[in-house]
Amino acid sequence: MPDRHSRRRDALRQTVATDGCGAILVSTVVNVGYLTGFSGDSTALIVMADRDLAVSDFRYAEQLQNECPDVPTHIRPVNQKLWAAVADAVGKLGIGNLAFEANGMFVSDHDTMRAALPGVATRGVIGRVEALRAIKDEEEIATIRRAILAAERAFAMFRAGLRLDESEIDAADGMEHYLRRCGSSAAAFEPIVAAGPGSALPHARPAAAGRIGDSDFLLVDWGAIVEGYRSDLTRMLVTAKVGTEFARVYRAVLAAQERAIATIRPGARASEVDAVARAAIDEAGFGGLFGHGLGHGIGLAIHESPWLRPDSDDVLRPGMVLTVEPGIYRTGWGGIRIEDDVLVTPDGAEILTSVPKAIETLSPY
Amino acid sequence: MPDRHSRRRDALRQTVATDGCGAILVSTVVNVGYLTGFSGDSTALIVMADRDLAVSDFRYAEQLQNECPDVPTHIRPVNQKLWAAVADAVGKLGIGNLAFEANGMFVSDHDTMRAALPGVATRGVIGRVEALRAIKDEEEIATIRRAILAAERAFAMFRAGLRLDESEIDAADGMEHYLRRCGSSAAAFEPIVAAGPGSALPHARPAAAGRIGDSDFLLVDWGAIVEGYRSDLTRMLVTAKVGTEFARVYRAVLAAQERAIATIRPGARASEVDAVARAAIDEAGFGGLFGHGLGHGIGLAIHESPWLRPDSDDVLRPGMVLTVEPGIYRTGWGGIRIEDDVLVTPDGAEILTSVPKAIETLSPY
Repeated sequence: MPDRHSRRRDALRQTVATDGCGAILVSTVVNVGYLTGFSGDSTALIVMADRDLAVSDFRYAEQLQNECPDVPTHIRPVNQKLWAAVADAVGKLGIGNLAFEANGMFVSDHDTMRAALPGVATRGVIGRVEALRAIKDEEEIATIRRAILAAERAFAMFRAGLRLDESEIDAADGMEHYLRRCGSSAAAFEPIVAAGPGSALPHARPAAAGRIGDSDFLLVDWGAIVEGYRSDLTRMLVTAKVGTEFARVYRAVLAAQERAIATIRPGARASEVDAVARAAIDEAGFGGLFGHGLGHGIGLAIHESPWLRPDSDDVLRPGMVLTVEPGIYRTGWGGIRIEDDVLVTPDGAEILTSVPKAIETLSPY
Repeated sequence: MPDRHSRRRDALRQTVATDGCGAILVSTVVNVGYLTGFSGDSTALIVMADRDLAVSDFRYAEQLQNECPDVPTHIRPVNQKLWAAVADAVGKLGIGNLAFEANGMFVSDHDTMRAALPGVATRGVIGRVEALRAIKDEEEIATIRRAILAAERAFAMFRAGLRLDESEIDAADGMEHYLRRCGSSAAAFEPIVAAGPGSALPHARPAAAGRIGDSDFLLVDWGAIVEGYRSDLTRMLVTAKVGTEFARVYRAVLAAQERAIATIRPGARASEVDAVARAAIDEAGFGGLFGHGLGHGIGLAIHESPWLRPDSDDVLRPGMVLTVEPGIYRTGWGGIRIEDDVLVTPDGAEILTSVPKAIETLSPY
């Protein structure tokens, strides 16, 4: 039986035929990894009707042999740049009509390749590999479950070890350490640890000054990586008793999240799921304070297709795994966000994450 | 006096005029950060003759205000994509001739923007901001020195705490923790900790299985980040006594590095510095086993201009900071690399890194 990477390349081969091209050039690092199992970078993959070729350099020659022995490789010399080597390979393979990843190739690299291949037609395509990646198979879902478990264990360590006299950055450094301790190869992204007013920045960076205990609440957004697959969660912690205003905003965010998750099922439009959360926040009186998309797919990348956004064209399908993360952000006061990872099942949705989020569970530690 | 970011934008403005354009669109995350001090992503910067505009989204509205209050911002609505918003802004600003970063903009994003701006001429340019970034000022050099100090302190912790019964990945996780402990905001890249044969992969990933003590030597490639600026070092550790073959290869690498560093001075061609190291390794009888470039600039990115490579056109100038990292890699046996960070001074070079590398200092711990 062909392995998972070989099956994925075969699935991509179908799209090459549909696009009317002789081959597709895959240049996005994550996509090359998805299709081959290779974990390095600076490597392009050419997928033709009857064969594949990875174009790389000396640094990765042995690693390619170890990680994807069934993919033939062309190792460029140290004095040749990647795109010149790719053009060489495309020419030698006799490809007359080449699809390339228009959202994974820089204008200048495309220009370099085109100039070296005057007789070859190139056609920019978008989302071919991303569409495959959006639907996770059983093995991928099991791996994401492990990435969630690692993140949740790390959060338990984080919560148990948090000190009111430490800074956001020291707490975030702790999370990085706990994630690795709990089986994550690294943090899925720089953990966000934002106390009080700082949490009003959806992508806040941890501060070195100040004590966490000086604020009444703390936003933590973190995730793990297991075998390349990522998890992504956000929870609020309260450092003092739950305030009236905090409770009012928190309940609005939680209700918006629960309502949105209840609409997730195969066939649902991503934009409509987003709209449900947005309407709930509007109705609660916080219109205009939820300024980002409701969520995104997770997998080998921390943000990937599908997109739960007002302008998304995505339709949900079984096997998609996505975050649902509404928030309300008030400058000067702070922000509240709640984020879970959700699997689209054949008949609805399964929330894969399990850290308690009922307001009663947020009692100060 | 204008601040550093404002001075940088003014320097870029000169190139806009030279390029004969009305504005330059900066889309590379690191370049936007260099020019503004903004530490987020998903944000484009338009630099015109008489003004600047950052185009971003809600997530970053407050952060932009905090980090670069002197840069006007346009916050796109949640239902509009970045490149559509950029096109809107370019149209409203009345820009007729727009330079863009050809090696920092995907083909599809460029297509989107072009389609929305039928009357605007766009011109791909390369390396405008990178050329500014390549020359560090006194403040940047001082920050890089701090990033080196953080890395060297972390290495002292690493060496003191290394256990022969731990795996590469546990040792690498330790390095990540020590780096943060020593003032780094994160590891500058995933630390490479590769024992024995695994070190034959220049970009080896740490293994979870096996004990470090089962090999005779260990390659460690690591770096720190301080205020965004990076350091990058490689050292070998011996876990048993120095073997005859190890010593022969190590001396060849060290001699190649020292000879190359001795040629670094303003006006030297980067390709010639690379050639000096390559010739030294050839002469020592290891021709063909040094398959990557000799080094690269470091700064806000871990790999940036200038490039010490056979095919580089760069000429060294005072204020450049670069790695010098020859290596010899033998499949099945292992690899040896030695890497220091070097500043080009007005009359030569200063080695900024100070971890001992004489073979006599490599006694087993």
